[in-house]
Amino acid sequence: MAILNTDRIITLKSRYSAVRKHSVSICTPLQIEDYVVQPIGDVSPPKWHLGHTTWFFETFILQPNFPDYKPFDPQYNFVFNSYYETIGARVIRTDRGNLSRPSVEDIYRYRAYVDSKMQLFLESDRMTAALEDLVELGLNHEQQHQELLLTDIKFILGHNPLFPAYSQEIDLSPSDQDPASMIKLNAGVYEIGFDKESFCFDNEKGRHQVYLHDFEIASALVTNAEYREFIEDNGYHDFRYWHAEGWDWVKQTETVAPLYWHFIDEKWMNYTWNGLEEVKMDEAVCHINFYEASAFAAWKGFRLPTEAEWEIASKHFNWGERWEWTGSAYLPYPGFKKEAGAVGEYNGKFMINQMVLRGASLATPKGHSRNTYRNFFHASQRWQFTGIRLAK
Amino acid sequence: MAILNTDRIITLKSRYSAVRKHSVSICTPLQIEDYVVQPIGDVSPPKWHLGHTTWFFETFILQPNFPDYKPFDPQYNFVFNSYYETIGARVIRTDRGNLSRPSVEDIYRYRAYVDSKMQLFLESDRMTAALEDLVELGLNHEQQHQELLLTDIKFILGHNPLFPAYSQEIDLSPSDQDPASMIKLNAGVYEIGFDKESFCFDNEKGRHQVYLHDFEIASALVTNAEYREFIEDNGYHDFRYWHAEGWDWVKQTETVAPLYWHFIDEKWMNYTWNGLEEVKMDEAVCHINFYEASAFAAWKGFRLPTEAEWEIASKHFNWGERWEWTGSAYLPYPGFKKEAGAVGEYNGKFMINQMVLRGASLATPKGHSRNTYRNFFHASQRWQFTGIRLAK
Amino acid sequence: MAILNTDRIITLKSRYSAVRKHSVSICTPLQIEDYVVQPIGDVSPPKWHLGHTTWFFETFILQPNFPDYKPFDPQYNFVFNSYYETIGARVIRTDRGNLSRPSVEDIYRYRAYVDSKMQLFLESDRMTAALEDLVELGLNHEQQHQELLLTDIKFILGHNPLFPAYSQEIDLSPSDQDPASMIKLNAGVYEIGFDKESFCFDNEKGRHQVYLHDFEIASALVTNAEYREFIEDNGYHDFRYWHAEGWDWVKQTETVAPLYWHFIDEKWMNYTWNGLEEVKMDEAVCHINFYEASAFAAWKGFRLPTEAEWEIASKHFNWGERWEWTGSAYLPYPGFKKEAGAVGEYNGKFMINQMVLRGASLATPKGHSRNTYRNFFHASQRWQFTGIRLAK
Amino acid sequence: MAILNTDRIITLKSRYSAVRKHSVSICTPLQIEDYVVQPIGDVSPPKWHLGHTTWFFETFILQPNFPDYKPFDPQYNFVFNSYYETIGARVIRTDRGNLSRPSVEDIYRYRAYVDSKMQLFLESDRMTAALEDLVELGLNHEQQHQELLLTDIKFILGHNPLFPAYSQEIDLSPSDQDPASMIKLNAGVYEIGFDKESFCFDNEKGRHQVYLHDFEIASALVTNAEYREFIEDNGYHDFRYWHAEGWDWVKQTETVAPLYWHFIDEKWMNYTWNGLEEVKMDEAVCHINFYEASAFAAWKGFRLPTEAEWEIASKHFNWGERWEWTGSAYLPYPGFKKEAGAVGEYNGKFMINQMVLRGASLATPKGHSRNTYRNFFHASQRWQFTGIRLAK
Repeated sequence: MAILNTDRIITLKSRYSAVRKHSVSICTPLQIEDYVVQPIGDVSPPKWHLGHTTWFFETFILQPNFPDYKPFDPQYNFVFNSYYETIGARVIRTDRGNLSRPSVEDIYRYRAYVDSKMQLFLESDRMTAALEDLVELGLNHEQQHQELLLTDIKFILGHNPLFPAYSQEIDLSPSDQDPASMIKLNAGVYEIGFDKESFCFDNEKGRHQVYLHDFEIASALVTNAEYREFIEDNGYHDFRYWHAEGWDWVKQTETVAPLYWHFIDEKWMNYTWNGLEEVKMDEAVCHINFYEASAFAAWKGFRLPTEAEWEIASKHFNWGERWEWTGSAYLPYPGFKKEAGAVGEYNGKFMINQMVLRGASLATPKGHSRNTYRNFFHASQRWQFTGIRLAK
Repeated sequence: MAILNTDRIITLKSRYSAVRKHSVSICTPLQIEDYVVQPIGDVSPPKWHLGHTTWFFETFILQPNFPDYKPFDPQYNFVFNSYYETIGARVIRTDRGNLSRPSVEDIYRYRAYVDSKMQLFLESDRMTAALEDLVELGLNHEQQHQELLLTDIKFILGHNPLFPAYSQEIDLSPSDQDPASMIKLNAGVYEIGFDKESFCFDNEKGRHQVYLHDFEIASALVTNAEYREFIEDNGYHDFRYWHAEGWDWVKQTETVAPLYWHFIDEKWMNYTWNGLEEVKMDEAVCHINFYEASAFAAWKGFRLPTEAEWEIASKHFNWGERWEWTGSAYLPYPGFKKEAGAVGEYNGKFMINQMVLRGASLATPKGHSRNTYRNFFHASQRWQFTGIRLAK
Repeated sequence: MAILNTDRIITLKSRYSAVRKHSVSICTPLQIEDYVVQPIGDVSPPKWHLGHTTWFFETFILQPNFPDYKPFDPQYNFVFNSYYETIGARVIRTDRGNLSRPSVEDIYRYRAYVDSKMQLFLESDRMTAALEDLVELGLNHEQQHQELLLTDIKFILGHNPLFPAYSQEIDLSPSDQDPASMIKLNAGVYEIGFDKESFCFDNEKGRHQVYLHDFEIASALVTNAEYREFIEDNGYHDFRYWHAEGWDWVKQTETVAPLYWHFIDEKWMNYTWNGLEEVKMDEAVCHINFYEASAFAAWKGFRLPTEAEWEIASKHFNWGERWEWTGSAYLPYPGFKKEAGAVGEYNGKFMINQMVLRGASLATPKGHSRNTYRNFFHASQRWQFTGIRLAK
Repeated sequence: MAILNTDRIITLKSRYSAVRKHSVSICTPLQIEDYVVQPIGDVSPPKWHLGHTTWFFETFILQPNFPDYKPFDPQYNFVFNSYYETIGARVIRTDRGNLSRPSVEDIYRYRAYVDSKMQLFLESDRMTAALEDLVELGLNHEQQHQELLLTDIKFILGHNPLFPAYSQEIDLSPSDQDPASMIKLNAGVYEIGFDKESFCFDNEKGRHQVYLHDFEIASALVTNAEYREFIEDNGYHDFRYWHAEGWDWVKQTETVAPLYWHFIDEKWMNYTWNGLEEVKMDEAVCHINFYEASAFAAWKGFRLPTEAEWEIASKHFNWGERWEWTGSAYLPYPGFKKEAGAVGEYNGKFMINQMVLRGASLATPKGHSRNTYRNFFHASQRWQFTGIRLAK
């Protein structure tokens, strides 16, 4: 059983502390009431995110490994569990918005309690390399929830009729896109997937060959201006651009623009971190779902890149402001294996009826992105910071 | 235009102040998070009740009658409107639980603002007898919401897996029921309905004759002990006692006991204002719906009284701990007329598919009950403080 | 045990035969395919009606009373049972339209088989006065289904895009309404309910006193012309006339006219037994639900009569073309008692959330109507031959 | 404009006639009632299939190309259209089961009318090579519906409580599977997709390279015996084998066995073309969905093959009794292009949230299968004749 050396311990403790603090700093601009609500099933209340990420460390690190560890509150397991079927009964996701207790203050006390125990544990002689990996997974898990926190906070505030701003202090504003050119790559056998020493999720593992045909990919993301052209050319009313399922979605939801766009007094307004503002036309379009990304591409005479094309081409363009929809379904890489135990449920169980997104977004924590990262959502979801890069 | 004399003004101002304060005192034991959630459509978030009752005075008294009145926030009309179709667009009821803003603090400031303007207005020379009636309606409206506040708070806390207590300080505990005897009344033409000078709702007006047959009515409410017998005699599994619709409800919801009852470690526990406690068998059964009340009566070989029977017999028994289900559908009294304008929507529009409840509950504010009062709910609802009185 | 005399037997056998034949004659104009479909849950496939009415005699008369009776097919109990909870598992109502077998031919053979056994049984010495009552109930049950057969056939054909005619030969056409005058009746204690020797349903039994106030009731039904005025005066777009529930129904279903009305080429067309025809303005309006009847009355400054008013006044006007909505909820008469056994489920279990209709319709079999008859439907239902009589 | 030579015309007319007759022969064992019903949205009434396939020829061949062609009935376009958005309004799919008219007899007359016109047209000088392709598409379209006819007929009869047999005369019985061995193939760049002169669907076009890793694939299909082991080993109650979505499906539908399996008197029975029979353990398992196929493979320590692996390996094993689930999502091949016009909607619009099946089934018409054929269904569907081939 490998004991960690002092340097590694110091680094890990410091990293643990930094990641944990970042979750709290994301919530600083909130009022207590904002922590509680859940407007749709996809969105979790911020206080749930804060509790759930803490529960991960309590359940997978402290309880099984730290002798005499006393849970902060035994009932929290029931409240903050998510989809891990091996860990007792779970709360139905859409019920999260009904729970006024534990209070926000209780949850911050829960975080402080678990953090202090974790700091003790990390420097104890119970700490092993295998557990270091699990801590690292916990920290990456928390970073995923940091992105979700921002995504969900935007939804909660952006669906309030008062359109409150989030914060003027946190800089999450996108840059203007440069004019796009097409980057050409040649056919051949390429390699994709993660093969470094550092952390990655199980779904990226297993670097492997793929055959790519000649393709072209845009150097920049589709802008709001370009997307407005699609709207004005009747794109949401012409079934020819849409998947049958996407067309049903358009008609049923009566969608005519990206999420957060509102046509007010003859102008397209956009709910942003600063409240309601006029749409900035040179920014990358955001908050569109796969159906919309795909319909836009069809209207433009292009297509979405596959995830392999994206990964191979990614060194030739800037990325990181939007999660970019690909034309690839979320499926296991060759040789994919679920890990044993509850942690093994992490990714594989979602490999059906989801599309892959590549890149990262402005809400992604620093250090949590890489060009092999495989994000995934259902084709209908658009509350994420999603965008479009065209290919041919 | 009748100007009010000083005494009447002082009385009204003092009554206004007392009623408004009582709403706040009901919420004192709450944490901020408890004000926000809406677990089911029937339940409104406490902060919505506080805002909505305030909106009533702002919309119906201050805006049309107080010159130069400046609304606290023009968007609040949209947020705190309820079902009054004549007053602009309304929020879909089930959306109330999604709104984190206005914050609880904002709403208390809203209340303070409107209360100060109301105090000015009540003593101004704009105040008339007709407006006094409207203020009185607003205060009775607020008292109705005080009862709903308690009802909804119990639901919110009672459906939290931590089962938090509400408050030890507020005394809302029921008394033990005396053994019931049957009170006999003779057939004949009787009069029911309200005919006094003081306030009543439009649905009670129009005192009128009804013919009653000989009947008997119980001197006391059905107790938890009696209801447990029904449960133990398989009452929830024998369709013969149930309306077809009630039977569908039982099977679909898999109900086997009153709301808030939990069978834990071989004991029937009950969520009360003090948290989870063993069921007190001599108290009146509570939180059952019309289907259950009716099935219980059928099992016992009795029936529910009609609302006319109840009103005529009410001077012969104690009432006021439970709203009591009657066998009467909620329909207009002879000669019922809707009043003009938004206030006219108050009651008449609900006169379909609802059953009448008579009496009052422990959550009813003092002075807000009378034996002509007609409460009404859908046969399936059981979050109210409802009980059973048998008849024959 | 009372044995029937020969005359009574001959009469009963002949009546049995006549009623049973009438069901078949209603179906004569149908094509096989028309017997099978179930466009909505309220409508049953005609072949189900033919089987279910036969099942009644097999289940309640032949099986328990006729020695050595061999069921035509033991599985038919499962297929043709309806809502009688005491008789085994029931088919979910909305599933009836999925069953292609038993075929129409099989069901006619089932009818012939049961009819021949019934004729034998009726003249056997097993036949008693109690059983005669049960046979009579079965025949009245079948007559109810004859009306439903016509109602459902109209729905099936009238919701087919080809709008096929039913039959030119069967005369079910309504008469023109005379101009209406108001009939005045004085307040007092009246008696309603059935008290004759002949057959009635359990819900009409128990003749009893009611107190009526002075009232007026129209001598004729509301015509299509009058109803068109309501439509043209924006009646479907003004919430003030509607119950809250009715208004939700209007908005959700986007209803703007009675069922079967279609606005084509600037004319109101009506699907009738002869296919699509222009609306005949002097006929009584038909196929409106309680919400519509009630909103129309409110618009006109009238109300619907109570069922007691209707019954007392009925000798003063013609009725029998439309089932007429009353303002009375369907509730038990004083002293109402469920009968024991499966037959006891006949009516009482539906006494919640239904409104009473009085009268009869052109689809009601001859001899199956009386002024004490209590029909009932949910306030939203309009596939029946319903109409409006105003009161004040 | 290429005119067809006489031989090609004779061949085409004869092929047209043969394909069209086969649809009729599939329906020969049906009773009229069986043509009408639609138990679930996935299933279409047989008479709709017969009409829709006829509508294809009328709409795409005769109307635009045959001068003076008079449609059999102009309203049939509305009734028999399916999902072709460019061709007028479409009937909501789930409504098909409500239409008793046109009658089965009418539809057979429709078929005869269109067939006689088609025979005239095929030998006319209006017939071109481009139209020949379109006729060929129409015939392949009809063959797809022949398979669906059998699939839907089995569902209709197999969900009838009488479990009627379809026909003893038509031989659609599966063979016993040989014991499976694993076939090994080496990594490398392979080619897949259609590149012959003959007919194929647009989704198979564009033969292209793919890189495959070393893999093994089973020589035979999974048998009922093997699948029963999965059931008996608690496979349907252990979430570890299932996708999250599949697990939700299991719990919500309470599924414990393949479609058509019934556990009766301690035996697994199976609804087959001959009625209810004991499960034949050596036959290939059938009527399982992707979730089940995938869970079975996970339980067994294997996986499903990708569609490329299947196509490359297909020459090494027998196939054609079951459509075989692959682990590939249904996505466009490189260079896929929708064709212009209504025919362009054929396949591309479904390329989201569907999984690819390869092979063919016993219900597939002769001559309608090839190893490049890409069938596709949603992961939850199991009414098709689907099976499992394992890979590693």
